[in-house]
Amino acid sequence: MATVRETTYDLLRALGMTTVFGNPGSTEEPFLQDFPDDFRYVHALHEASAVAMADGYAQATGRPAHVNLHTAPGTGNGMGNLVTAWHNKTPLIVSAGQQTREMLLLEPRLASRHATELTQPYVKWSHEPARAQDIPAAFMRAYATATQPPTGPVFLSLPMDDWAQPAAGAPEVRTVATRYAPDPARLREFAARVAASRCPALVLGGAVDRAGAWPAAVALAKRLAAPVWAAPAPERAPFPEDHPHFRGVLPYAIGPLAEALAGHDTVLVVGAPVFRYYPHVPGDHLPAGARLLHVTDDPDETARAPVGDSLLADPGLALAALVELLPATDRPPPAPR
Amino acid sequence: MATVRETTYDLLRALGMTTVFGNPGSTEEPFLQDFPDDFRYVHALHEASAVAMADGYAQATGRPAHVNLHTAPGTGNGMGNLVTAWHNKTPLIVSAGQQTREMLLLEPRLASRHATELTQPYVKWSHEPARAQDIPAAFMRAYATATQPPTGPVFLSLPMDDWAQPAAGAPEVRTVATRYAPDPARLREFAARVAASRCPALVLGGAVDRAGAWPAAVALAKRLAAPVWAAPAPERAPFPEDHPHFRGVLPYAIGPLAEALAGHDTVLVVGAPVFRYYPHVPGDHLPAGARLLHVTDDPDETARAPVGDSLLADPGLALAALVELLPATDRPPPAPR
Amino acid sequence: MATVRETTYDLLRALGMTTVFGNPGSTEEPFLQDFPDDFRYVHALHEASAVAMADGYAQATGRPAHVNLHTAPGTGNGMGNLVTAWHNKTPLIVSAGQQTREMLLLEPRLASRHATELTQPYVKWSHEPARAQDIPAAFMRAYATATQPPTGPVFLSLPMDDWAQPAAGAPEVRTVATRYAPDPARLREFAARVAASRCPALVLGGAVDRAGAWPAAVALAKRLAAPVWAAPAPERAPFPEDHPHFRGVLPYAIGPLAEALAGHDTVLVVGAPVFRYYPHVPGDHLPAGARLLHVTDDPDETARAPVGDSLLADPGLALAALVELLPATDRPPPAPR
Amino acid sequence: MATVRETTYDLLRALGMTTVFGNPGSTEEPFLQDFPDDFRYVHALHEASAVAMADGYAQATGRPAHVNLHTAPGTGNGMGNLVTAWHNKTPLIVSAGQQTREMLLLEPRLASRHATELTQPYVKWSHEPARAQDIPAAFMRAYATATQPPTGPVFLSLPMDDWAQPAAGAPEVRTVATRYAPDPARLREFAARVAASRCPALVLGGAVDRAGAWPAAVALAKRLAAPVWAAPAPERAPFPEDHPHFRGVLPYAIGPLAEALAGHDTVLVVGAPVFRYYPHVPGDHLPAGARLLHVTDDPDETARAPVGDSLLADPGLALAALVELLPATDRPPPAPR
Repeated sequence: MATVRETTYDLLRALGMTTVFGNPGSTEEPFLQDFPDDFRYVHALHEASAVAMADGYAQATGRPAHVNLHTAPGTGNGMGNLVTAWHNKTPLIVSAGQQTREMLLLEPRLASRHATELTQPYVKWSHEPARAQDIPAAFMRAYATATQPPTGPVFLSLPMDDWAQPAAGAPEVRTVATRYAPDPARLREFAARVAASRCPALVLGGAVDRAGAWPAAVALAKRLAAPVWAAPAPERAPFPEDHPHFRGVLPYAIGPLAEALAGHDTVLVVGAPVFRYYPHVPGDHLPAGARLLHVTDDPDETARAPVGDSLLADPGLALAALVELLPATDRPPPAPR
Repeated sequence: MATVRETTYDLLRALGMTTVFGNPGSTEEPFLQDFPDDFRYVHALHEASAVAMADGYAQATGRPAHVNLHTAPGTGNGMGNLVTAWHNKTPLIVSAGQQTREMLLLEPRLASRHATELTQPYVKWSHEPARAQDIPAAFMRAYATATQPPTGPVFLSLPMDDWAQPAAGAPEVRTVATRYAPDPARLREFAARVAASRCPALVLGGAVDRAGAWPAAVALAKRLAAPVWAAPAPERAPFPEDHPHFRGVLPYAIGPLAEALAGHDTVLVVGAPVFRYYPHVPGDHLPAGARLLHVTDDPDETARAPVGDSLLADPGLALAALVELLPATDRPPPAPR
Repeated sequence: MATVRETTYDLLRALGMTTVFGNPGSTEEPFLQDFPDDFRYVHALHEASAVAMADGYAQATGRPAHVNLHTAPGTGNGMGNLVTAWHNKTPLIVSAGQQTREMLLLEPRLASRHATELTQPYVKWSHEPARAQDIPAAFMRAYATATQPPTGPVFLSLPMDDWAQPAAGAPEVRTVATRYAPDPARLREFAARVAASRCPALVLGGAVDRAGAWPAAVALAKRLAAPVWAAPAPERAPFPEDHPHFRGVLPYAIGPLAEALAGHDTVLVVGAPVFRYYPHVPGDHLPAGARLLHVTDDPDETARAPVGDSLLADPGLALAALVELLPATDRPPPAPR
Repeated sequence: MATVRETTYDLLRALGMTTVFGNPGSTEEPFLQDFPDDFRYVHALHEASAVAMADGYAQATGRPAHVNLHTAPGTGNGMGNLVTAWHNKTPLIVSAGQQTREMLLLEPRLASRHATELTQPYVKWSHEPARAQDIPAAFMRAYATATQPPTGPVFLSLPMDDWAQPAAGAPEVRTVATRYAPDPARLREFAARVAASRCPALVLGGAVDRAGAWPAAVALAKRLAAPVWAAPAPERAPFPEDHPHFRGVLPYAIGPLAEALAGHDTVLVVGAPVFRYYPHVPGDHLPAGARLLHVTDDPDETARAPVGDSLLADPGLALAALVELLPATDRPPPAPR
């Protein structure tokens, strides 16, 4: 009969997750022993590096990555870069060893007390399975959670004695949607507002690049004859920086950002929060009279934006659909910088 | 200069939220005093009733409702029905009074210690503003959060001395998307799989009704000549119960539910979790050989489903799009019950 | 071989906890079936009543009480009175049913998501055992936690399928300290400061009565010839109200409370927080020049007090020790009211 | 009028906390600017080092230390060593910068979302003041919380714009008890049980050294003619290792630890958890027939111990009191190793 460990490796294999980043301690040994030949272990010398490498690998490959950390102190060491991965919206499965179930009640050495709460502020889902037999399906759920929009890290705390237990069958390998499209009615409304704009500006964020949507972004910029800015502190480059429409990264501060957009009556923000201000420089969020239209697949970003009407959608699908719906303009293109 | 209280009432007015359900205590008085004539206060005699009435009102009107509770003990009294509202996916703004900021550090009588953690397991967002001046914009963010898919309750803890403070301007009244459409590529894949099905079954959940999508559901049932079940323990009626295709509510248990679907090779679930089992009756989740396709606007539902491939979308938009994409079948319609 | 259920009943019997308050649902049935003849079930018609009865019973008997609630919605219904039990410092074991472990990962109907977080702000310990076999020992730990100073409620979330599992032996019945004594060096310092006081006042809280320390409080009042007040909003009567030294309950508000103590240079507070203010009336916390000495067994109360030096101790032991250390005064006793 | 910053430095000065460890970022600048000449800033190159240095400094000086970290990512970097400081029971005030209150609602760059939850599993108190004016008194409460038994770390999240605000007066500098004595009745019972023991063993933990109680431990070992072990994985050396009674550190595992204690009928554990097991080696917790008596100032340690009766007390006070109460034995001293 297959063990929990064998069933989990089979699932990870089926999900294409055969690379594991980590910095192991003893609580991870039962997972790592007899490490399969077709898997690759990337050994970091500190948990911060392990998380950072996994984050970069996931971004570079466009697929979720798996990083395996030591129980509480090791997970703690990785928390700083987990904060970064959260803001990067990187799909990461962070797993960590936990003491054996047999002793957890007495909180022995290397027990992670409140393990699921430790990472909670910076993961989409934090879980310690109620039974050893749930570990494979918990990985499936973790994968599904991490890869659905808005993508991001998840956390699994895994008691070290669970791996050798007999599995209760293999979980079904399931697939989930990794993007969603704009509501057609609201999209048409957005298109009409942009079409009616006298002088629109385009502000793009890292999600445009995550969606592989540079071509759609370029097409829309041309269609609108509009200048393009990167939103402040973009986690990825959202637009070709040598494109004549590109104006650089907007300032990080409220007043200066509005000044940079002076003269525009409509600001279309795609794939960014509104905005990653840092020093607090008081002022209006937008030039006088301007309206902001906000497109992102992250409902938390639309909820907390101080200004603007919003549309939930994959940035790539939304950009392509807007190009479809918008008529060509007779405005001259912006002068190159 | 307008106060925080005046600015908040102006915002609630602009959002159409002029009905307040509640069971007040002294910590709510500064919000309720000089209650405006154009607002309506629905006074419950217990917080459980206040939350339940607000839940029903929101469901009946199709709009978010506002319920105002007393500090910790009152909020505690309402927690049971908040659990229900969470499962109902009802957009509720739950606000509660908090002691004055001046004394919070010494945790005086009626302070709600860890106020935002009290409701956290059953709200989408739990917040106590960092400044009195943030209350109006916090209501705007609460409204946006509650009404975006998947809809649900949110919580605001509001220090009682904040209401009389001078406001820092009015927040912008913003609008957000309340639904999103399926990824077109994945939708076509789903349509192809349904079209290729020998004997599909349709299982619908409460979100179909929340989306106002009975007509689309009926059209799809006819197009597929498929029987229709309600998913176990639906929070709303997802299909006309006197329709000849309707087969009733599926059993709550794993084995029996699979038996009820025996003979079907494709099970299309729309607007429900997979599934609200209650007694644990072991068995397979589906009849042998059957595949499940899952459509919902709640990524947590798709992540935790034990079987099935999923598509994130507003159930109404997805049903309508599937009717468009699916050819008519030459199967006979199911016999009436 | 004994089951988890049998072993738990044996432990509860050994702890003298043969009364169970509750309002059960199906998730509690596996615990309650074949309810032993020597146990008593007190059936409330609502969880709020069940918690309140258990709170009163524990206070009246001076022993911890057990209240068994339904999963999330039932526990939610009891939260309001759990807030009260927390402030009463009542040793309560609150147990609640949880869905079966087999299905928890898919969050079926009646699963309590984040069960341990639901009650956390108002319990000393919140726990869902990692294995069925830990339930008896978890009750032992719950009992130990609830009864140690400062006493208070604890919470256990118990999967319904765990009760029929074979037990892994019985936990050892352990005893813990239920009070601790003052640091002798610091006590002598407190005694010296009180002895040097020109006009001391005694302010007592509910913990004096919980410690059964009316006689010691009366003896100290006589030894000091000092007037006695009850601290604001006492959860129990801390002093005989017909005693000639008794001056009533202090006002709830900062300014008025200081005025009530005018003329006293030393305020000795025993067994109360400093203080349960409610309306915020600005002012000084004490009369000009007065110093506060604070004795309680709750380190959170001493940490958050805005004024005063403090001594951690059981109020009864501290009062008795102060009577020993303090010389008789030649002040006249306060005039009766 | 004094600022919040000035008032805080005055308080830290009064508390003797003029050394600050840290690794600053921009959110800490408003606290650090115009750093007073009589304060010392110990600049680490990584937050892990800053926390570790502060931990060691506090342990070496026997006084609480202050470590100032950057907002979320910096605090995250320090989490691993915060786990260690928690297990070391080191009194640490960990403060961290937070974004300005003016922008927190929109969660700008460097905002620490859920700041107080980030560190919560490994601190005694986690707090973000409700007003700028509460910062000085929050430090006073932090100090009181960290230094009371059981000592440990606390966390303050401090919005960067708060420091320049006008203070609302200086908080009172308060003192708290840093130890408490055993309940005299229960202590006599423990002494009687030890006195009646045929062959007692003494097991000591790091808290004995924190209490400065080597002399009392040596005196008790002699009085009992008992061998002395260090509890597994002690965070400090609890007994002179060259003393003839010293037997070394007990094994980390259940079975082997019981074997090491074979022949003893009473095991008196002072100042340690029972026990810091690490590999899970099944077995009995004690030799057959042996009883464990547990003395510690940490009620969580007594609650979760799998075996033993316990007494809450400062280890130093308890050891000294036991020496007083116990008669001399006529057993021969244990042979030197």
